Amino acid sequence: MKRIVLGVQYDGTPWRGWQTQLSGDTVQDRLEAALKKFTHRDISVTCAGRTDAGVHALEQIVHFDTDLDRELFSWVRGVNAFLPPSIAVRWAHDIKSHPADIFHARFSATARTYHYVVYNHAIRSPILAGKVGWVFRPVALEPMRLAAQYLLGVHDFSAFRSAECQAKSPVRTMHDIRIEQRGNLIIFTLCANAFLHHMVRNIVGSLIFTGKGKYSPEWMDELLQGRDRSHAAPTFMPDGLYLTKIDYDSKWNLPHEPTQIVPWLA
Amino acid sequence: MKRIVLGVQYDGTPWRGWQTQLSGDTVQDRLEAALKKFTHRDISVTCAGRTDAGVHALEQIVHFDTDLDRELFSWVRGVNAFLPPSIAVRWAHDIKSHPADIFHARFSATARTYHYVVYNHAIRSPILAGKVGWVFRPVALEPMRLAAQYLLGVHDFSAFRSAECQAKSPVRTMHDIRIEQRGNLIIFTLCANAFLHHMVRNIVGSLIFTGKGKYSPEWMDELLQGRDRSHAAPTFMPDGLYLTKIDYDSKWNLPHEPTQIVPWLA
Repeated sequence: MKRIVLGVQYDGTPWRGWQTQLSGDTVQDRLEAALKKFTHRDISVTCAGRTDAGVHALEQIVHFDTDLDRELFSWVRGVNAFLPPSIAVRWAHDIKSHPADIFHARFSATARTYHYVVYNHAIRSPILAGKVGWVFRPVALEPMRLAAQYLLGVHDFSAFRSAECQAKSPVRTMHDIRIEQRGNLIIFTLCANAFLHHMVRNIVGSLIFTGKGKYSPEWMDELLQGRDRSHAAPTFMPDGLYLTKIDYDSKWNLPHEPTQIVPWLA
Repeated sequence: MKRIVLGVQYDGTPWRGWQTQLSGDTVQDRLEAALKKFTHRDISVTCAGRTDAGVHALEQIVHFDTDLDRELFSWVRGVNAFLPPSIAVRWAHDIKSHPADIFHARFSATARTYHYVVYNHAIRSPILAGKVGWVFRPVALEPMRLAAQYLLGVHDFSAFRSAECQAKSPVRTMHDIRIEQRGNLIIFTLCANAFLHHMVRNIVGSLIFTGKGKYSPEWMDELLQGRDRSHAAPTFMPDGLYLTKIDYDSKWNLPHEPTQIVPWLA
């Protein structure tokens, strides 16, 4: 058996999220169906981070096991031939078996990076619909940057965790939060060891409250310390959220595509 | 009666082009339906350039006549409330009546600019699906730039005209063709007094033939002189085509949004 790793990109707009459902309308369902058409076998895949309905991935990491012997490029082109336009395998890699040290897309991951893209303009943009969140009132960057400082490091993130979150612990380590403006776009980049359910969208929603002047940057500290989800901003829309990068130990030697593959993150 | 002018942006992917059809699945149908919901009157609109199915517009120009007296911003926000996410009015302007000199979205236009965006990469991009044309073989810019020189100026463009084209004359004046690379994107910008049906997509398809090395740049001159549509490249896919800008005499004092509203054209 070989463990194959895929880098998968998708537009989440048409799908009910990553994880398989009876409806079959999820990214995992479509990927497994394409693998079955390509191999004539049942193949289950495991991903690094399950994304919600409407959330995109520039480079979702997926693994599966197979005894088939195919060239790596055919795992890309062969599977893509059976995938819809909104999903594609971008690269494939095979992991040599070490019984004591097995690669796992989720458990081997050491950090995750998400982008959230906000279109800040009085009128919504049809060309970017589904690809960005929209805020029509002016948003100031400086208060959001100050507020974001409170979130860095090891914290109990219960204030930003959805009621459906299944994680055992609400403690996460936030490595970095960057907030940049490019024309009418505001790009949030969050990197942590892992994220709770809805954590990025809840943090971005609360940061935007401070950017609009509704609360001071210190409110973010109160929120975090209060550990009460009902005090934070409503969960922000999924449209602008991109799973961008999963970090692994360099010993696995996985490929990585720069985020410039999407021009508005270049 | 007042003549109102609108700047309209749309993602062409879900629509059967601009022009009204019995199905109602066109941009014009949806805009006129939204105007009717907003005003409770039948309003017919006239556009500057009818786009085909799947073709986008950053700033389509539209006019209509009305005796209603509304604030200009309500023609934007009020109509947008009844439009789908893929279509939006970006601005409204009213034209003072001069009986001898009437503004017309189509006949007053002095030039049109289109962008064509190509994603040049071995693997297709799901995030950009529907928004770019895709060429998986490497494309060189220099031969395309040389080939484009033959098209500048006044020419009979029959070689790039679709069989369904209803224009009386195949002669057009090409003011400018620019070809730029940004990462994996190649952006073509074409400006002419007017375009024949499918002319941009046929020219871009033929330029890409020279960029792939299938023909020399001089082939473009032969094509143009031959005036025979059957010799040019097949009509390129609509996905990457954007109607970007319509020029009018400055006396009309129309607003214009810079193309930076779409990040991959910024």
